[in-house]
Amino acid sequence: MVTVTASQKASISPEAAEFLSKIPMIPFAGLLSPYLASSKRVQGLRNDMATKVSPNEEDLMARHNLKLTPTKIATVPVLIIEPPTLSSEHEGKIILNFFGGGFVMGSARERAALLMATEMRIRVYSVEYSKSPETRYPGARDEALTVYRQLISSFGAKNIYGMGSSAGGQILVSMLLIARSEKLPMPARLFLCTPALDLSGAGDSLVSNEGRDVMPASFLSAIVKQNYQLDTVDVKDSYYSPVYADYDASFPPTVISVGTRDLFLSDGVRMYWKLREAGVEAELLVSEGMWHGFNWNETLPEAVRLRRCVREFLASSL
Amino acid sequence: MVTVTASQKASISPEAAEFLSKIPMIPFAGLLSPYLASSKRVQGLRNDMATKVSPNEEDLMARHNLKLTPTKIATVPVLIIEPPTLSSEHEGKIILNFFGGGFVMGSARERAALLMATEMRIRVYSVEYSKSPETRYPGARDEALTVYRQLISSFGAKNIYGMGSSAGGQILVSMLLIARSEKLPMPARLFLCTPALDLSGAGDSLVSNEGRDVMPASFLSAIVKQNYQLDTVDVKDSYYSPVYADYDASFPPTVISVGTRDLFLSDGVRMYWKLREAGVEAELLVSEGMWHGFNWNETLPEAVRLRRCVREFLASSL
Repeated sequence: MVTVTASQKASISPEAAEFLSKIPMIPFAGLLSPYLASSKRVQGLRNDMATKVSPNEEDLMARHNLKLTPTKIATVPVLIIEPPTLSSEHEGKIILNFFGGGFVMGSARERAALLMATEMRIRVYSVEYSKSPETRYPGARDEALTVYRQLISSFGAKNIYGMGSSAGGQILVSMLLIARSEKLPMPARLFLCTPALDLSGAGDSLVSNEGRDVMPASFLSAIVKQNYQLDTVDVKDSYYSPVYADYDASFPPTVISVGTRDLFLSDGVRMYWKLREAGVEAELLVSEGMWHGFNWNETLPEAVRLRRCVREFLASSL
Repeated sequence: MVTVTASQKASISPEAAEFLSKIPMIPFAGLLSPYLASSKRVQGLRNDMATKVSPNEEDLMARHNLKLTPTKIATVPVLIIEPPTLSSEHEGKIILNFFGGGFVMGSARERAALLMATEMRIRVYSVEYSKSPETRYPGARDEALTVYRQLISSFGAKNIYGMGSSAGGQILVSMLLIARSEKLPMPARLFLCTPALDLSGAGDSLVSNEGRDVMPASFLSAIVKQNYQLDTVDVKDSYYSPVYADYDASFPPTVISVGTRDLFLSDGVRMYWKLREAGVEAELLVSEGMWHGFNWNETLPEAVRLRRCVREFLASSL
């Protein structure tokens, strides 16, 4: 099980403490991860994740009357998630979302996107990018750029909020760095949620939160290495590991969410400083005792609070 | 030694990596802390700390031409630290400082105060509060209030920036909560540096950063329990553990600094949310791979950056 002591439970909500006390860990994760993450196991990982999250996704879709419309933008599948009523505050605005799942799992209808459409009452364009190992880096990033190019022509960059969770954070930021190099306009604001921004393995929390987070960093790193990473890539290349890129004030104002128990705590912290030092408006929201993707829980008090603050940040561009 | 891997060294400055690789840990800290922290060992702890930091303090004082004037405010010893020239930006303003040292060690001429006087070119009134076990809670806090009461009458509350490191953070915030209950005006802004704000032992990082921080939480907790804490105190009393207090928008704008390796990461994170949710302007600065008190280092890149951001925060009240 994930390690959690009584004094750690005392600083989080009872709901969070109960959640953590039920999280099984991969035994000998550090040792077994290379095997467990091999390409031939990816279909099993996808099925496991879908089995786990589908009932929750379907419940959210039904209960909040979300309309899901699969479409294509240029050649790329995109899922449009639409709440029953749109907020007048965000009229004409959309969210462009990139789901999480270690580049190998997950889907455009992820809970983060469903909750954002519901709670912000905004249309979410969630990109069904190609997963690994079938499509390796930079395939998904290039699809992201194709979609972005079309959406800025349809809606205007200033009407787009970018959002990416975990692996989706890397795809989003990497895409925007390419877009910037091509002189495309930047979106209004970004939300990076427990983002994977350093795929080189550097970072304090990748080590320190192993065995504490719901996702062992050793496992996720092995997934990325065996399935997403090309043999030829420089793992510190600034498009591959965007925490190493140069930023300037043209980059969009960005809110970053991580937890103290989160394997990507360090990625969030480092990106915050990087943006801040470049003169970008940045907000880092660190949540006590929270794990990778805690915010995907609809009712967890820490998640409710976090999502409210993210919505406030995005809305403050109005 | 403190645990630090190659991938953790890769996300911090070379200076920080070298520092961490030389930090010895108390062997069996969890087991030995109750003995090592007993009252009869306090004089030894004080001597060890003074031996360690004095040369550094004296060097700072000499190199930056700081003038140190011990005085008394009402009955309380206060050290006035004055740089050779005062910034016109902060004319008429002072910093009221509470040093760190687990309530049992340290002194008013601590490096944090010397560096602030030097770099902000401002007069620092650093309170030489009574230490434990000779004086237990709330002795130091009451001395703090005596000084604060006098300083607001001399300078005006709006000309005072409050600053407290570690134990000094608890004394400062606890004092302001009493001051607020007595309808005294609040200072302009606060800097809480790796603050001890929950003395009940709750918090994620008190567990997770044991063996990773320069100060084992088990040791500091044992010091507090055996020397500072009264048997009669409720450890979750909101004056004793100010993270449990109710805040409102009358509380001063506050910048909080912690590190990902810091035993008080959670205290800083939780206080940030507490203030933010109360409508207080709050900024949380989390530094990658940094430890308890990293900012006391004059040249460490992460510390230089942190102190610059703190000065900007304090100056933004102008």
